[in-house]
Amino acid sequence: MTDAVRMSLEDVHAAAKAAMLGQGFADNHATAIANTVTAAERDECRHHGLFRLPFYVNGLRSGQASPDVEPVLTELAPGVLKVDAGYAFSPLALERGDAPLAERAKEHGIAALAVTNALNVAALWPEVERLADRGLVGFAFVSSSPYVAPAGGIKPLFGTNPMAFAWPRLDGPPVVFDQASSASARGEIQLRLRDGESLPDGWAIDSHGRPTNDPQEALLGAQMTFGGFKGSNIALMVELLAGPLLGDKISFEQAAHDKANTGAPCGGELVIALDPARFVAGGDRVAQLKHAELLFQSLLAQDGARLPSGRRYEARRRSEADGVMVPRSLVDSIESYIAGKVVIERAKYEGDHITASMASA
Amino acid sequence: MTDAVRMSLEDVHAAAKAAMLGQGFADNHATAIANTVTAAERDECRHHGLFRLPFYVNGLRSGQASPDVEPVLTELAPGVLKVDAGYAFSPLALERGDAPLAERAKEHGIAALAVTNALNVAALWPEVERLADRGLVGFAFVSSSPYVAPAGGIKPLFGTNPMAFAWPRLDGPPVVFDQASSASARGEIQLRLRDGESLPDGWAIDSHGRPTNDPQEALLGAQMTFGGFKGSNIALMVELLAGPLLGDKISFEQAAHDKANTGAPCGGELVIALDPARFVAGGDRVAQLKHAELLFQSLLAQDGARLPSGRRYEARRRSEADGVMVPRSLVDSIESYIAGKVVIERAKYEGDHITASMASA
Repeated sequence: MTDAVRMSLEDVHAAAKAAMLGQGFADNHATAIANTVTAAERDECRHHGLFRLPFYVNGLRSGQASPDVEPVLTELAPGVLKVDAGYAFSPLALERGDAPLAERAKEHGIAALAVTNALNVAALWPEVERLADRGLVGFAFVSSSPYVAPAGGIKPLFGTNPMAFAWPRLDGPPVVFDQASSASARGEIQLRLRDGESLPDGWAIDSHGRPTNDPQEALLGAQMTFGGFKGSNIALMVELLAGPLLGDKISFEQAAHDKANTGAPCGGELVIALDPARFVAGGDRVAQLKHAELLFQSLLAQDGARLPSGRRYEARRRSEADGVMVPRSLVDSIESYIAGKVVIERAKYEGDHITASMASA
Repeated sequence: MTDAVRMSLEDVHAAAKAAMLGQGFADNHATAIANTVTAAERDECRHHGLFRLPFYVNGLRSGQASPDVEPVLTELAPGVLKVDAGYAFSPLALERGDAPLAERAKEHGIAALAVTNALNVAALWPEVERLADRGLVGFAFVSSSPYVAPAGGIKPLFGTNPMAFAWPRLDGPPVVFDQASSASARGEIQLRLRDGESLPDGWAIDSHGRPTNDPQEALLGAQMTFGGFKGSNIALMVELLAGPLLGDKISFEQAAHDKANTGAPCGGELVIALDPARFVAGGDRVAQLKHAELLFQSLLAQDGARLPSGRRYEARRRSEADGVMVPRSLVDSIESYIAGKVVIERAKYEGDHITASMASA
């Protein structure tokens, strides 16, 4: 990295928060966005780190995201809580729902959180990891803009529709996965377009439904689900759980709602929490978690096999010790944000959202 | 079909039940097994139909399955019910848990059913379809014998670990999928071995971890997960949800428990039910389900795309009108079962369970 700046995680958080404040977010949202961006930067999920700030800015400047609305928590049923995000970005709504959801799960054994009217451009693992840090098992499901063809079809219908899962451990951070229903992330195709690289087989079809390795053709066509019809079924499930179940939007409705083409789809997210102690008589959570360790040990005993999130935790240890390296150009853009400058969104791909890099005006 | 007998679904049920009674099951289990076998036969899921009766018989004759124990329903938490199957086959336990789970889900919005100590050789879709028939969204997860290598590994660790999901519809049967975390069902490999056919790429590795198209080598080696590491993550999730969460067995512990090698692993199953009406203020389930129809219509508007379970419902219409065709050899075996004859299990594959076909002694 020839021109990069080393920043502590405290510095990353302070810079992200100041940038959001500088662009007009109120303290509540600026803090929550900085929290999620810093967590991603820390775990070297750069795509959701500082690199992602333009999406938040663009959502705000387009008028589609509220700068300051406070999420509203209500009870829909004894086991179901709702947080109406009020057409603001999701991190604050998810933070507000976290403790109440955990409390309900511990009381009832299982509980759900319906987050609605939230602009979502963040990863899902933070919310399920938080639940697991409280000793709970967590699921999360969110839909997005329609980029992915159903198995057998040729036109975009589903979002990349990630689902996340977390299992708590007695020692150390939880086992967590957060994976798209598509074969690849949208951003991975965009990066290959930028770098002039071709796509692996199985990622995408062109606008005629033919398999393609050309990133430009892929962005004009459709992404494919992972694992064929099984991944397509999971994409369908996520679509139903994050949309109609919550009275919120299907991916193609989110796209229609995103009139300013901000790349920040507005919709629902379903989070489910289970308390392991309430799934066995006597509630001996320690025995359950020790039991799960047998499975993890057997998996890790196989060369080449690894637990999901292992790499993320290795990165976390490095970042907590040494901070992270941030490209100079990104630091410059953040400084413009902090100074309140208007920052121009980058060129759009046809039918696609802005690229996750910044150019200051 | 040169030598087959047409049977009405009533005849299938009566024959299956009489066979189970003839082999020593009490009425409660004989009826529940006949219910699940008949549903599978009706939907042309032949692998779980009459063809599957030897697994039930073998589990009983080995002494591993109770012929008559009544499942015990208890409440573990306001949102969590448990049915201890008492080391008997799962269909009766699942039937006993169905209405109480649905009632809890309607009361609390979301509820879970922990089925433990159940021998499982049936499909998962009947339990989630029943929930959807009650207007609920259903999930089910079950682990099995260790046949599947984790992504990156080369040795069997996970079961084929299916998960099922169901979404209710206003008109007609629900949208349901029930899919293994492995690239293929175990039985599909066994059928290709029997028929001298090779396996598609991506299904299996041999005992040295090399990709193989040879069914014999595959059965000695390991099956692969669908969709690479993403399918492997789902297999891991299912393992945790059906095992340690419920205080029940991991797949490799199920195999150790199956001393008689019956091919009927004994373990846990997690079923989760959500009431859509409790996920929106005002509880207008009709609006939610109509909304979901927009998604289904968009999917079906694409040539080649289809909803999961569509083929099963087409088969159901045929079977309900015309009955099903059952091979004469299978009818003969069932008649031996009904007469109480001891039926010899077929040759075993190395490290594997009995083949799902019958030979009477």
